[in-house]
Amino acid sequence: MQLHLSTWPEVETYLQSSTGIIIPIGSTEQHGPTGLIGTDAICAEAIAQGVGEETGALVAPTINVGMALHHLGFPGSISLRPSTLIQVILDSLTSLARAGFTHFYLINGHGGNIATVKAAFAELYYQLEILNISQASRVRCQLDNWFMARSVYQLAKELYGDQEGSHATPSEVALTQFVYPQSIKHAPLAPNVAKGYGIYGATQFRQSYPDGRMGSNPALATPEHGQRFYEAAVQEMSENYRRFLQEN
Amino acid sequence: MQLHLSTWPEVETYLQSSTGIIIPIGSTEQHGPTGLIGTDAICAEAIAQGVGEETGALVAPTINVGMALHHLGFPGSISLRPSTLIQVILDSLTSLARAGFTHFYLINGHGGNIATVKAAFAELYYQLEILNISQASRVRCQLDNWFMARSVYQLAKELYGDQEGSHATPSEVALTQFVYPQSIKHAPLAPNVAKGYGIYGATQFRQSYPDGRMGSNPALATPEHGQRFYEAAVQEMSENYRRFLQEN
Amino acid sequence: MQLHLSTWPEVETYLQSSTGIIIPIGSTEQHGPTGLIGTDAICAEAIAQGVGEETGALVAPTINVGMALHHLGFPGSISLRPSTLIQVILDSLTSLARAGFTHFYLINGHGGNIATVKAAFAELYYQLEILNISQASRVRCQLDNWFMARSVYQLAKELYGDQEGSHATPSEVALTQFVYPQSIKHAPLAPNVAKGYGIYGATQFRQSYPDGRMGSNPALATPEHGQRFYEAAVQEMSENYRRFLQEN
Amino acid sequence: MQLHLSTWPEVETYLQSSTGIIIPIGSTEQHGPTGLIGTDAICAEAIAQGVGEETGALVAPTINVGMALHHLGFPGSISLRPSTLIQVILDSLTSLARAGFTHFYLINGHGGNIATVKAAFAELYYQLEILNISQASRVRCQLDNWFMARSVYQLAKELYGDQEGSHATPSEVALTQFVYPQSIKHAPLAPNVAKGYGIYGATQFRQSYPDGRMGSNPALATPEHGQRFYEAAVQEMSENYRRFLQEN
Amino acid sequence: MQLHLSTWPEVETYLQSSTGIIIPIGSTEQHGPTGLIGTDAICAEAIAQGVGEETGALVAPTINVGMALHHLGFPGSISLRPSTLIQVILDSLTSLARAGFTHFYLINGHGGNIATVKAAFAELYYQLEILNISQASRVRCQLDNWFMARSVYQLAKELYGDQEGSHATPSEVALTQFVYPQSIKHAPLAPNVAKGYGIYGATQFRQSYPDGRMGSNPALATPEHGQRFYEAAVQEMSENYRRFLQEN
Amino acid sequence: MQLHLSTWPEVETYLQSSTGIIIPIGSTEQHGPTGLIGTDAICAEAIAQGVGEETGALVAPTINVGMALHHLGFPGSISLRPSTLIQVILDSLTSLARAGFTHFYLINGHGGNIATVKAAFAELYYQLEILNISQASRVRCQLDNWFMARSVYQLAKELYGDQEGSHATPSEVALTQFVYPQSIKHAPLAPNVAKGYGIYGATQFRQSYPDGRMGSNPALATPEHGQRFYEAAVQEMSENYRRFLQEN
Repeated sequence: MQLHLSTWPEVETYLQSSTGIIIPIGSTEQHGPTGLIGTDAICAEAIAQGVGEETGALVAPTINVGMALHHLGFPGSISLRPSTLIQVILDSLTSLARAGFTHFYLINGHGGNIATVKAAFAELYYQLEILNISQASRVRCQLDNWFMARSVYQLAKELYGDQEGSHATPSEVALTQFVYPQSIKHAPLAPNVAKGYGIYGATQFRQSYPDGRMGSNPALATPEHGQRFYEAAVQEMSENYRRFLQEN
Repeated sequence: MQLHLSTWPEVETYLQSSTGIIIPIGSTEQHGPTGLIGTDAICAEAIAQGVGEETGALVAPTINVGMALHHLGFPGSISLRPSTLIQVILDSLTSLARAGFTHFYLINGHGGNIATVKAAFAELYYQLEILNISQASRVRCQLDNWFMARSVYQLAKELYGDQEGSHATPSEVALTQFVYPQSIKHAPLAPNVAKGYGIYGATQFRQSYPDGRMGSNPALATPEHGQRFYEAAVQEMSENYRRFLQEN
Repeated sequence: MQLHLSTWPEVETYLQSSTGIIIPIGSTEQHGPTGLIGTDAICAEAIAQGVGEETGALVAPTINVGMALHHLGFPGSISLRPSTLIQVILDSLTSLARAGFTHFYLINGHGGNIATVKAAFAELYYQLEILNISQASRVRCQLDNWFMARSVYQLAKELYGDQEGSHATPSEVALTQFVYPQSIKHAPLAPNVAKGYGIYGATQFRQSYPDGRMGSNPALATPEHGQRFYEAAVQEMSENYRRFLQEN
Repeated sequence: MQLHLSTWPEVETYLQSSTGIIIPIGSTEQHGPTGLIGTDAICAEAIAQGVGEETGALVAPTINVGMALHHLGFPGSISLRPSTLIQVILDSLTSLARAGFTHFYLINGHGGNIATVKAAFAELYYQLEILNISQASRVRCQLDNWFMARSVYQLAKELYGDQEGSHATPSEVALTQFVYPQSIKHAPLAPNVAKGYGIYGATQFRQSYPDGRMGSNPALATPEHGQRFYEAAVQEMSENYRRFLQEN
Repeated sequence: MQLHLSTWPEVETYLQSSTGIIIPIGSTEQHGPTGLIGTDAICAEAIAQGVGEETGALVAPTINVGMALHHLGFPGSISLRPSTLIQVILDSLTSLARAGFTHFYLINGHGGNIATVKAAFAELYYQLEILNISQASRVRCQLDNWFMARSVYQLAKELYGDQEGSHATPSEVALTQFVYPQSIKHAPLAPNVAKGYGIYGATQFRQSYPDGRMGSNPALATPEHGQRFYEAAVQEMSENYRRFLQEN
Repeated sequence: MQLHLSTWPEVETYLQSSTGIIIPIGSTEQHGPTGLIGTDAICAEAIAQGVGEETGALVAPTINVGMALHHLGFPGSISLRPSTLIQVILDSLTSLARAGFTHFYLINGHGGNIATVKAAFAELYYQLEILNISQASRVRCQLDNWFMARSVYQLAKELYGDQEGSHATPSEVALTQFVYPQSIKHAPLAPNVAKGYGIYGATQFRQSYPDGRMGSNPALATPEHGQRFYEAAVQEMSENYRRFLQEN
């Protein structure tokens, strides 16, 4: 059940049986010469819809711009500052919490979001309590990264070994190929991909990783792999979501 | 050309021939008993993609949560505060401006966004200039509301007359039916729909407009109407976009 | 009854018969070679006092610096950023709302304020409700632009036709001449005044409108015209205010 | 020379001979049973105009709402939060500094503003330098409280002794009587006025000072006294301003 | 009793007999060629611990970075912007107020903090009241500058006369020598120390005061003097604290 | 070399040979019935000083209040909101970066700080670049948690096994006992310590972990253990710091 395709009376009815909601969060940032700029949002959204179908959970619209300041050296990347993203999450989850939602399960497609989102959760609990929002102390948030799900991680290791890398990875590219087979891109990929550098500012990132990849070989990706990642992630995260709903 | 389905080298190439970009902005808010909560984002996104195809413009991901504080009395609505939305627009457009984009054309699906977006534009020009961002003084932003396009407005009058109303209108519902025919909703609609009240806070709004509609009869909507609205909007706004690119 | 010329016990008494208040809002910005920098504040303040006398309403001090970022290319202009002006309005109206005021009628002298003020109203309703301020849901705000009042607009068309223009207009200059006859300015005005350009940042504005006027011929203004504008605005806006007080 | 009664070319000319500007800052807050709510703004504005005439300095519009949070327990009081007032001062002075003004002389009518304004000055210098605003390192700000001018202070002691008190004082009331003789208020004043309590929040302030006065007897004020205060303040602060302009 | 060396049950017990707390606040900024960068924090912390021992009061951790923007021209200085420091104080004191503390006594070692801290107090009272924090109206804050204590001031005059100066003073240097005798520094001090200039931005400050001292001769300081300052300050401020606790 | 015990000329000299600096960051929060409220700051500070001695690095004053919102249900805890802590880090590191420091090594004592500090780093790089701060693109930040150092972790496992737990752990208590042997606390500890619950808001945290411990048995701690933890951490983190300085 997708929020943007539902009516408010349907949401009202839903709240009678569940106060949980799934929120996909991605990013709009370069993913190397062949990866889609929307990769992280596409992956999070697709999996969130899959988990929503599997569990009957309501799925909110995707937060498709996240914290990607270090990718701003590549054209097409868009980022919020962490302090802005915190406010976006506070406002959005407060809207839902006041309507009765208590369990917020964020399916995340981008490592760069993790720190900011966790900071936002802490500020949310505080804000809800200090404002005396009804049921504030019952609110629970969880961030779950699809690419760190155990089954996904193992599959990536099995299929790609060291060539999985850590950005513009074949696993995420494969998943976007499964979702958007008409948008599979081809471009020459230098065999000696940069890896092992730290991640600091945008200038340093582009200097260290000149084509945007971090140790990855996305040429290994196929839509069939993408389907396997999708299925693994949906199954594992559906279980995670069901378990999360038990948190009281 | 959609940004989230492009690679950064493709964007780099695009910038050589155009520095314009289209950004759809909608809202996630109640649209009466039968309107989809994502109506405003769905409409803006569909039209933006149409304009993108028509003009060859790059289309950014949709800002799908906007300024809908007055709808928060209905479950499922999500809103940013205006001061948060201003920061979102500042951060996002600054990301793109630093990469070389100069013309930002926002296709808007929600009247409640207008004031905040215009305020954000003013703050953006200022911020870019005071930060000495390269080409700051060449940046131009325009907000265009699809539902106020002349051809759209006339078609709505012709098809629905006074029953068009001003929220959860048959025209926007029709457009969502065209885009998502599998999500057409049915629910009893009281014949005496509320209208004519002001819009203030969330409590007042729900008291004044108890089922969420403002003077509208969305039961008149059909997917075929939706297609006509879509085509009219795409054509008119494509011309608007081309004209906007001439603004120097 | 002017707030700054009243005592707190007088305000306490006033609140027993009315919870409405008028707040003039202007701007401090260039108005062409002959227009006063305080034009927008002067006009809003004078009319607000007139409406106050006509209706017995309390009139707050004028917000004399507004949103004029695009005028900052001309010396003497002062502007708040939209995000600052939103906080000013939030703080000010919250002060009054906690004391029992419920109806805030802003008489506006500057088009550039409109978007930001409307954004602020939305944030105010939200803030009052989420903070559980007493009577929050009864608060109503309205922004009324004196220069868009029907009788004013018609008079301007009748007196000046196309030479009214849209900034540093003869109508607003006339009104300031009526209020401050000792400050009537003379300067050569090029006959070919710039017009028709968009309004973006400060650099672009000054390039497009080098003497600060937008299509206007303020040389047509006279103090007598100013009096007619004043009287028309006071009468029409007094009616508007009375009607606004009925909004519940 | 008053900014709001000047044109931008007049300001351009003024800047060729002086880069100093006077900014009156007051407050909108209760001043006891007979003091005007606008007392602090009225006093600052009148003296600023006097100093402007005496020295030929440009005088900006009055900041008429300041930091008066502790007076919010009395109806009619309006206050900004310190963090808002800081932004107002940053934005306003940055506007002027970018146009070439370097010396900002604030004539203050309200003790409650002092801390916040001084904090804002510090933040302003920093902001101008970090933004690389032209001439940033030459900007100088000074806050001068008219009621603490030596000649004023001595006159108040001479005329009122201990009955001067520290809020709603006869000296400031006298000055408003001189400026607005038609707005002299009369009300019974309890002989045992509260005094000696600290100033904390709004609730405490009203409990400690139930009629709003702090140890003062404003019944002693006369318009003639007001004129003497006015003249003393204008003379002394004109000298202060001239000296301040020498600060390089 | 020091907070950082206590357990929460000990704090819970403490609150049963007292709701007062002492918070030292200093700065991290240059103090001339021989003064320690931590001087202000060291002095405030040492005296706060002394007062804590004398009065049995709980002493919070030291706020060791304050408002020192004008010292940023000298390496090693660290400063918060005033608007940041206000938030630090709001968050910290709100944490404690919600736990039951009502009397906050800040022992300050740095003149540059005064304005910002006082602004923060005003905002705190307001925030606690508007958020309906329990006991909000009973909260009292006081800022006490050790270097302005009468006994300290007199001792400094007696020992150093005009060579006390106003920054990097022998009195504060002496106190740090008493606390950290192993960190006594020696460096040549030009006999003609700069004095009498205003304090504006960082660039101006360093130009006016090239070695960081303001009219002082810290070579006069000795650890024995430091002990006398310490004892005078502890005694006087202990009395101040006890008196402050009586404020209701 | 400790910053607060240094003079600015010493820092100037230091910068000629190194642009690295160590910043300890802790927290002020409950640590169970026997743990010190300052535990996290004490540990971070002690280890930072040790690493400073070992490597010759400059050590900044400790950030002793961090992100501990979830501990606010226990008296004595103090926390910044994440959005405040981000500003503190931005301001502090910007101060140092403008003076020439490029490598910021934060030694962290509190898990709750991690997300916010990492978010702040990202925002810092961005802010420095967008403000065109000299050497902005060379700035590098690293957060290193002493309790997660491999040698520390292994020692804790070896000494305490499962009774290490995850808050108010014997390892951190031991370290504070080594640093402050005079502040070793004794209190009855229930054998059945709570564990395994999530961490959400303050109310939930106290309900889940009623005495503040999370699965730990701090009664196992001894000062001798503390010394071993100290030495292991100092050695490992000194190597980490040296390696970090190589990051270019």
